Amino acid sequence: MDRAEGQLTPETNEVLTDLKAAWPVMAPDERIESLKLLPEDEAEEFFLALTSREQAQLLVALPHLTRRAWLRLLPLDDAADVVQHASRGDRDALLALLDDVSLREVRALLAYAEDEAGGLMNPRFARLRPEMTVDEAILYLRRQAQQKDRPIYYCYVLDSEQKLKGVLSFRQLLTAPAAKRIEEVMITDVVTVAEDLDQEKIAPLFSAKNLVALPVLDGDGRMKGVVSAEDIVDVVQEEATEDIQKLAGVEALDAPYLQVSILEMVRKRAGWLAILFLGGTLTASAIGHFDHELSLWKVLMAYIPLIMSSGGNSGSQSATLVIRALALGELRLDDWWRVFKRELIGGLTLGLFLSCIGMLRVLLWQWLFGEYGDHFMRLAFTISFSVVGVVLFGSLVGSLLPFLLRLLKLDPATACSPFVATFCDVTGLMIYFGFCSLIYIPHVPSDLPP
Amino acid sequence: MDRAEGQLTPETNEVLTDLKAAWPVMAPDERIESLKLLPEDEAEEFFLALTSREQAQLLVALPHLTRRAWLRLLPLDDAADVVQHASRGDRDALLALLDDVSLREVRALLAYAEDEAGGLMNPRFARLRPEMTVDEAILYLRRQAQQKDRPIYYCYVLDSEQKLKGVLSFRQLLTAPAAKRIEEVMITDVVTVAEDLDQEKIAPLFSAKNLVALPVLDGDGRMKGVVSAEDIVDVVQEEATEDIQKLAGVEALDAPYLQVSILEMVRKRAGWLAILFLGGTLTASAIGHFDHELSLWKVLMAYIPLIMSSGGNSGSQSATLVIRALALGELRLDDWWRVFKRELIGGLTLGLFLSCIGMLRVLLWQWLFGEYGDHFMRLAFTISFSVVGVVLFGSLVGSLLPFLLRLLKLDPATACSPFVATFCDVTGLMIYFGFCSLIYIPHVPSDLPP
Repeated sequence: MDRAEGQLTPETNEVLTDLKAAWPVMAPDERIESLKLLPEDEAEEFFLALTSREQAQLLVALPHLTRRAWLRLLPLDDAADVVQHASRGDRDALLALLDDVSLREVRALLAYAEDEAGGLMNPRFARLRPEMTVDEAILYLRRQAQQKDRPIYYCYVLDSEQKLKGVLSFRQLLTAPAAKRIEEVMITDVVTVAEDLDQEKIAPLFSAKNLVALPVLDGDGRMKGVVSAEDIVDVVQEEATEDIQKLAGVEALDAPYLQVSILEMVRKRAGWLAILFLGGTLTASAIGHFDHELSLWKVLMAYIPLIMSSGGNSGSQSATLVIRALALGELRLDDWWRVFKRELIGGLTLGLFLSCIGMLRVLLWQWLFGEYGDHFMRLAFTISFSVVGVVLFGSLVGSLLPFLLRLLKLDPATACSPFVATFCDVTGLMIYFGFCSLIYIPHVPSDLPP
Repeated sequence: MDRAEGQLTPETNEVLTDLKAAWPVMAPDERIESLKLLPEDEAEEFFLALTSREQAQLLVALPHLTRRAWLRLLPLDDAADVVQHASRGDRDALLALLDDVSLREVRALLAYAEDEAGGLMNPRFARLRPEMTVDEAILYLRRQAQQKDRPIYYCYVLDSEQKLKGVLSFRQLLTAPAAKRIEEVMITDVVTVAEDLDQEKIAPLFSAKNLVALPVLDGDGRMKGVVSAEDIVDVVQEEATEDIQKLAGVEALDAPYLQVSILEMVRKRAGWLAILFLGGTLTASAIGHFDHELSLWKVLMAYIPLIMSSGGNSGSQSATLVIRALALGELRLDDWWRVFKRELIGGLTLGLFLSCIGMLRVLLWQWLFGEYGDHFMRLAFTISFSVVGVVLFGSLVGSLLPFLLRLLKLDPATACSPFVATFCDVTGLMIYFGFCSLIYIPHVPSDLPP
């Protein structure tokens, strides 16, 4: 059975799903034992569905013969990924299992960075020459040995220098008049990607053009391989996971949650937590400078966290929306002014909306408990003005900081949320203390000391 | 030129990219004018690369004849998406442009929810009968008219009741012995999806099985259409964007940032901001109950935001990691106990780490400014114990709440972050006030009233 097109019935699928769920917590020898219980083809299917990291772990633990057979099941780009995920000591042992031709191709793939087009592509694809007739081409393809390899859905037409001249799908080949030459029926304006193109930039091409595979060219226009849509599904999923983790102030885990050791997890979370903690000590200093007033007008103290978190929440909303839009290419650097105007209006509106809620809360508590004394309206206005200020400020900082980071060639997702949070906290306090000093403190008698 | 395999040279690509960037801010008549400046095939390509929403907006603004021609360029599943994105009033006008056969198929597609397999699939695909020979099958496919339709990479073998019997790729068909019958060479254990399967569950099948297209079956095993990998690239991208936006407390925008009206944006952000604001007023109440003590021991006040945000940050880290792992299927409901144990150890470690930083900060300030008086060690321990408590509590709540929401059949991404934040804030205050009352207040003389 051709491995890449090998498919499973739903029932088998379920057994394998259970095994897959238990996989992360099984010891290496438990894994091998449970695979032995499966029929050979199911065990192979299971192996093929594992991630490259898991495949590498398993291969190293397998007996030599099975190891060789299973490594050879993999398409070459996947085999290269497995070698990349093995520990340095195991790499040569794995490479030694490949035949000479495959070894050369895998070594070539290993030279690419994992996240560029060259690192994703499969170097094997169906090649035709422009001067063949359709009939000759079909015969030629039928004569070629059926490779245990990923099925590619286009035939690529190369000249004698391996330069890409055109493309046609197997289906187009099949339905073309038999006597025409390939160069007469092939499509000549082809979307291609450069071998060093970043993988993030490849995904939009697939979805915009409805293509299932893209040819990868080197700087001289020679065709090196093919990236296919199902590889990109993984890439898109991984990139999104990384961005989500970074937005929450965690370094990218690079592996499923349960497979990351607790120590590693702590390390990846500790960095940003410590930076945020140090940022947070700035709020302690800021409050420290104002503590005399706060202890004399106690009610002002109670509202500090509310004001601060309003700024932080609106800031993180704006930052997240802009970071994602930048990542998807919906926004470009020179859109910053348009974004600024939108967030100015939006932030002001949201601030006014929240300030009304704040106003109502003060009035309601005054009416229910009378706890704010004669000057409750001054308190209500202090809270309201501060909320408008911090929400507006949070939205503007949150939306513009990602542009600044991108301008500085930094990844907006990495650094943004923590900075926005700390920035909004400290400036939020300033805004609040400002309005307290302006509207409330000079006009309201202090709480008498007990 | 076959539209779905139509491809562009890099140069043309660049011009279109610029037009695409300006597109969101152009008026409908500007859009039509600038498309008129392009050669016809480039204008068509541009139209095909737009999102369904943009295609719908454009079609409605076009003159009748172009509108009909362009709508008919679309594969039927995309045409159905366009109709779905048009305003109710325009839908019938658009449907009227289709020929009878397409109209029937598009209406059938419109009956599916947009986010289930049936709503993603293309109802046209290459069908073979099991009793054909390979030669007959190739002849049959060559005789069929070349449809302006998305190329499908497998041939599906159906019996007389339209039940799926097997599958084979065009390439396998081409390389099979000419005289064999299809049922002898086809693959019979096929991965299929049910027509009402949620789109989130489809993506993992593509990446695990390295498949480029999956057949969609109804409840009786009859084949209804095909979902292909390049559609799933979009789906994965959209689902990730939704989750990212929800995690930041924004309702899913469902459109690119610049294309959402400011009013709509404000509406989608206001809901969670208001809920968080109301949650935040609980902190005001909590602090209000403690304000007498805080005004007598002013230094305790200064550390409130730091303690609260430490809990919130670790909670949002845990919540995000678990929510993403649940979304990717890396975690299942019954993993909660394993996650609990991990977060218990991880949260404790992180808490101890941050508490050391907190301890150092207090000691350093005492040494530099002497500002905490004789009982600075009591303050240092109050801060340290509280930080351990809130970080541990934040990690546990943040990691378990997503499981609870999933158990209640709610989307963990939607509600989790805001709840975790508010929960951590209020309980963080309680933990802090608890340690203040235990370690600090009873043993330290209050700041004398001025």
